[in-house]
Amino acid sequence: MKRAPRISLLCIGTELLRGQLNTHESKISLALSGHGLPLWRSLTLPDDPKLIAREIREALSEGQAALVCGGLGPTFDDLTREAASLALEKPLVYRPELYSAILRKLSRHAFPVAEENRRQAFVLEGAQVIENERGSAPGQLLAFGRAGSKLLALLPGPYSEMWPMFESVVLPRLLKTYGPQPCSQVAVHMSGIPESLADEKLSGLTRRPKPGEDFTILSGPGQVDFYARVRTRSRELARKKAAALRKRIHEAVGRHIFGEDGETLESAVGRILRKGRLTLAVAESCTAGLLGARLTEVPGSSKYFLGGVLAYSDELKRRALGVPKELLSRHGAVSAECAQAMALGARRLARASIGLSITGIAGPGGGGPEKPVGLVYIGISGPGSQQGGARYLFSGDRQYVRRRAVTAALDLLRLTVGRRT
Amino acid sequence: MKRAPRISLLCIGTELLRGQLNTHESKISLALSGHGLPLWRSLTLPDDPKLIAREIREALSEGQAALVCGGLGPTFDDLTREAASLALEKPLVYRPELYSAILRKLSRHAFPVAEENRRQAFVLEGAQVIENERGSAPGQLLAFGRAGSKLLALLPGPYSEMWPMFESVVLPRLLKTYGPQPCSQVAVHMSGIPESLADEKLSGLTRRPKPGEDFTILSGPGQVDFYARVRTRSRELARKKAAALRKRIHEAVGRHIFGEDGETLESAVGRILRKGRLTLAVAESCTAGLLGARLTEVPGSSKYFLGGVLAYSDELKRRALGVPKELLSRHGAVSAECAQAMALGARRLARASIGLSITGIAGPGGGGPEKPVGLVYIGISGPGSQQGGARYLFSGDRQYVRRRAVTAALDLLRLTVGRRT
Repeated sequence: MKRAPRISLLCIGTELLRGQLNTHESKISLALSGHGLPLWRSLTLPDDPKLIAREIREALSEGQAALVCGGLGPTFDDLTREAASLALEKPLVYRPELYSAILRKLSRHAFPVAEENRRQAFVLEGAQVIENERGSAPGQLLAFGRAGSKLLALLPGPYSEMWPMFESVVLPRLLKTYGPQPCSQVAVHMSGIPESLADEKLSGLTRRPKPGEDFTILSGPGQVDFYARVRTRSRELARKKAAALRKRIHEAVGRHIFGEDGETLESAVGRILRKGRLTLAVAESCTAGLLGARLTEVPGSSKYFLGGVLAYSDELKRRALGVPKELLSRHGAVSAECAQAMALGARRLARASIGLSITGIAGPGGGGPEKPVGLVYIGISGPGSQQGGARYLFSGDRQYVRRRAVTAALDLLRLTVGRRT
Repeated sequence: MKRAPRISLLCIGTELLRGQLNTHESKISLALSGHGLPLWRSLTLPDDPKLIAREIREALSEGQAALVCGGLGPTFDDLTREAASLALEKPLVYRPELYSAILRKLSRHAFPVAEENRRQAFVLEGAQVIENERGSAPGQLLAFGRAGSKLLALLPGPYSEMWPMFESVVLPRLLKTYGPQPCSQVAVHMSGIPESLADEKLSGLTRRPKPGEDFTILSGPGQVDFYARVRTRSRELARKKAAALRKRIHEAVGRHIFGEDGETLESAVGRILRKGRLTLAVAESCTAGLLGARLTEVPGSSKYFLGGVLAYSDELKRRALGVPKELLSRHGAVSAECAQAMALGARRLARASIGLSITGIAGPGGGGPEKPVGLVYIGISGPGSQQGGARYLFSGDRQYVRRRAVTAALDLLRLTVGRRT
């Protein structure tokens, strides 16, 4: 079995170490792993040519390929070219025709062209120049080592300039050099199960991985994602093995799985509602719109989602949802009874098949000994006298409790309606 | 001027190299540079204990501090503890009292506790344990080297667990160890201005920075943040210079500034509403709860936010908000007229001082030549016959259009109400 090449990403720029969000890592690594060439590691480095040179050298001595983004501009702090030259002990060659092309590009703008731009016309000896369609700095791609098996790509920092070069030149070259990868991936998404329990149930697979298998388990508020990858002799065989893994995963965590291969919980709920030709309305108290917002992240959700009420104040619970005043004074707004009445009220108001409600105490204030912060009730009201609900106690801050409450509501709806349809 | 210590961030997790977006680098580096302790470099590493160990060793031999996030959970791929032990040649010590605490935490849930959780009770010899208020994995902080001048922090991967530990324990310890830095930061938050225009207006400061000054401009949907930092001989002088910078920033971008030093737009709106003793209700169509959810991210928002209606379907616009049927058939649901009627309806239903509405086409479907995807109307209805509104055309995907619409609504409210109070 061929081993996956070790590919490093190096993002250059002091601003990335001062709070600027770097999305290159996520975008590039997703694209690469989709082609069976996952990133090995990723580094963010300041504009320090010695450090950059050392890290390029390390990436290419321990690994096969290095993708360097940023530091190709014209200004004093753009030092990637020099660092790469230092790292590989290869001279930079001035290419007058490149400079003419840069001048032509820049002359389109009204600004005077700074002499600094000449620096962008220096290229590593033997490197292929990658044209930049959106900016002035050309990219560079250098193959070296035995049969050209090592690759160094220098790409500009701005996403809009980097991405077309990555997609059209670098990615194809990586695939050509390291071959289409004989691997396959299964992604399974679960709710209503904590990470540690999911892990235990899946330990039959993960504790003793067979050669070529690798696993990742990941958790967010109320959700656990499990990724299984197989790498073997051929893509055909990898697909077969992945299918077998998928079956074993289902046997292990069964009903907790709401979707696969990237499906979200809200999209799974939408799928179930659509299948049952059902419509949904919501009534939200402590989440105040988070549930509706999440349901409608799905394009086309207007097919089954009608809307609802943000009944943040008790007055709105009464006026818009018809929750009886006596119920509120007897049980309080955070109670199973109120959740039930809210769900019914939303269903009636919107003339929906199903009403789904959330009421709780998100904190930090408002909690007490009997009703602590984190207490949440979910209510479901269905056709006829069908109703359901559940009580939860979440520990975390305001934001966490609210997000967890939404996931719990979606999960309860999935299990309640999914069983029927 | 004292030299800043070299602090490395190491984010651990194969999933981060498979496309998962890592925001720790941005959040941590922003906080650190605000205190004059900028990150030196940042690495993302797979769940490979040998590689993690080597990189921890390197970070601490060339630098002073390493912050390691992730890999502290109970599962098979959580290997940071072992890697740190390998890197520093320090044993891991089992702490039964920690395991009892973990068991107590987990027993609050209904799930059976997996045996794997025991792994979380192993601590590097001599390390301080950092309590995890939001999850089971405790953090660890180890000081070593001459006079404890080297620091290694092990923190959990999930942001909600990592951040409180970073803020309450790690950051103060870094400041104590490396001294309060002779620097000062100004953070200014703007809305209603594109990044390029803000950049241009601020170019008087940023194009010719004085020694010790550095600037970062960041942008999100509808918001631009500008950070100015000064590093000089003494903190006293740094503060003075920062105050002068703050003044110049206000002169440059004036009314676009909604808040400073970390204030959010929703919190600025809340401050204005509270000051004017006003209450607010919302009516949301295409955002379906996103506006309500964002307004209530602010603790104590129930003082001024009453709730509202998710009028996703036209029927709910009529039934819950009283939007006339004729208006809908004449102007359509995505129109200034409908936005106005929705805002009025929400205000009346909730008996609020102000009604705020959003209606638009988030896409990807539903657009046409006259009403394209990205078209959004905001409506405001105030006491008496006061009303206002605006029309926007955003370009981006569904998620972007919805987020942008919410920011636009909050910004319009801020400008409309802020002027009166």
